[in-house]
Amino acid sequence: MTYCVALCLEKGMVFLSDTRTNAGVDAIGTFRKMVIFEKDKNRLFTMMSSGNLAITQSVKEMLIQGQKFDGVNLWNAKSSYDAALVVGKAIREVKARDEEALNSSNIDFNCNFIFGGQIKGEKHRLFNIYSAGNFVESTPETCYFQIGEAKYGKPILDRVINYETSLELATKCALISMDSTLKSNISVGLPLDLMVYQKDAIEKHLAISIDEQNPYFSMLRNLWGQKLTEIIMSVEDPNWSEQDHQTKISTHSNRLGPIPTIEN
Amino acid sequence: MTYCVALCLEKGMVFLSDTRTNAGVDAIGTFRKMVIFEKDKNRLFTMMSSGNLAITQSVKEMLIQGQKFDGVNLWNAKSSYDAALVVGKAIREVKARDEEALNSSNIDFNCNFIFGGQIKGEKHRLFNIYSAGNFVESTPETCYFQIGEAKYGKPILDRVINYETSLELATKCALISMDSTLKSNISVGLPLDLMVYQKDAIEKHLAISIDEQNPYFSMLRNLWGQKLTEIIMSVEDPNWSEQDHQTKISTHSNRLGPIPTIEN
Repeated sequence: MTYCVALCLEKGMVFLSDTRTNAGVDAIGTFRKMVIFEKDKNRLFTMMSSGNLAITQSVKEMLIQGQKFDGVNLWNAKSSYDAALVVGKAIREVKARDEEALNSSNIDFNCNFIFGGQIKGEKHRLFNIYSAGNFVESTPETCYFQIGEAKYGKPILDRVINYETSLELATKCALISMDSTLKSNISVGLPLDLMVYQKDAIEKHLAISIDEQNPYFSMLRNLWGQKLTEIIMSVEDPNWSEQDHQTKISTHSNRLGPIPTIEN
Repeated sequence: MTYCVALCLEKGMVFLSDTRTNAGVDAIGTFRKMVIFEKDKNRLFTMMSSGNLAITQSVKEMLIQGQKFDGVNLWNAKSSYDAALVVGKAIREVKARDEEALNSSNIDFNCNFIFGGQIKGEKHRLFNIYSAGNFVESTPETCYFQIGEAKYGKPILDRVINYETSLELATKCALISMDSTLKSNISVGLPLDLMVYQKDAIEKHLAISIDEQNPYFSMLRNLWGQKLTEIIMSVEDPNWSEQDHQTKISTHSNRLGPIPTIEN
């Protein structure tokens, strides 16, 4: 599996991906899921992928080779929307080529891409592109996308992130979201690729790979576990005494009755 | 969907379940997923269920009716293990009755139960019982089970819980695990049923239903979101300056190279 998350915020974008692939528990490998497309101060896109690796690598290869669809590729697309269309068309070309053979082996055509960035003169934009080649764009109300093993790392994003969140806080939040996933699911693994983009820069602000030895990430994950335990301990305990039953944690104004109890 | 979690700890047990069922987004209902079986100071079991409601209700009905399998039911089973076998056999009886008809409608035979408690003279024990009627028991190393929408609420458990955790802390942690799930997945919903059991008591320590109006749960969920944001803000930001690149968040000793960048 895979976990990738990207946020498109007022001040820029954050992309974070793991690098583990697996086909069963005994076939584990490390593959980069992030790739950056950069044309000097004209456009910069970051793409992350999940799903069948043979599919996602083929799609990536077409994009890297600059293959044109109706005359358009990532380098000459007029808008980020048009660039996302290029990614979608590359997916459809791989689908046309491989789906029948995959299905005959009982394998679904399965791939997902997060694609985003900025073309000079346009705002920064983020897209979630599906196996069918169609896609949705993020908005200020729904400003992040996840692909792969998304559930473990979703609560922290839902609790902390909004469109006005700073890039620093968003980066920490993405790293914690990833760490929650790493801790609870062995199909997601280090190293991580992190890309932070400041809007209108049209160049990488930060693009680094983070492994087990990275001091900041090690500090963050240790500190986080510790702080979580601290706050949960600092929150007032439910008090089980009869009096508190009535006030703190009680059935009063409860719309269901007591828990069904069968006695013998 | 459903989310249920149970912890079997040194000092006792905590069970927590939601009450939402859904068949698609337009067929949402409230059904209790927790039931308690109690025989005065002799035995006390708590059972929670997920999966197909028609199946889980049938299984529950057989257990409530005291149906015997090879002469054994929940009221006369000699051990909690034997009681878990009774639940497994009830599942198999429903399976024998309904599976063919379900399959002919392209519906899987799908149910999961968490079942645990204590019989006088034996320690408190917790089981995760599958659709096939087989089951596993928790251990001090793996002291909790989840069924249903388990992923959202797993990271907090993995970070905080161990076998020595107090019942108060475990209860708070289960409530936060549930709240993370409620916040990120609309197929899980209030009210909640909470049962706390102190080992060797062979009676309910606390068995309450928690709805939107419950003051303690409201306080906990508001406070938690706020505290999470506070700690994440209090953690040192990654510093993007060139110098700090080399020390705090850098590629040094990284086992992968830089993120692949395609230039044009």
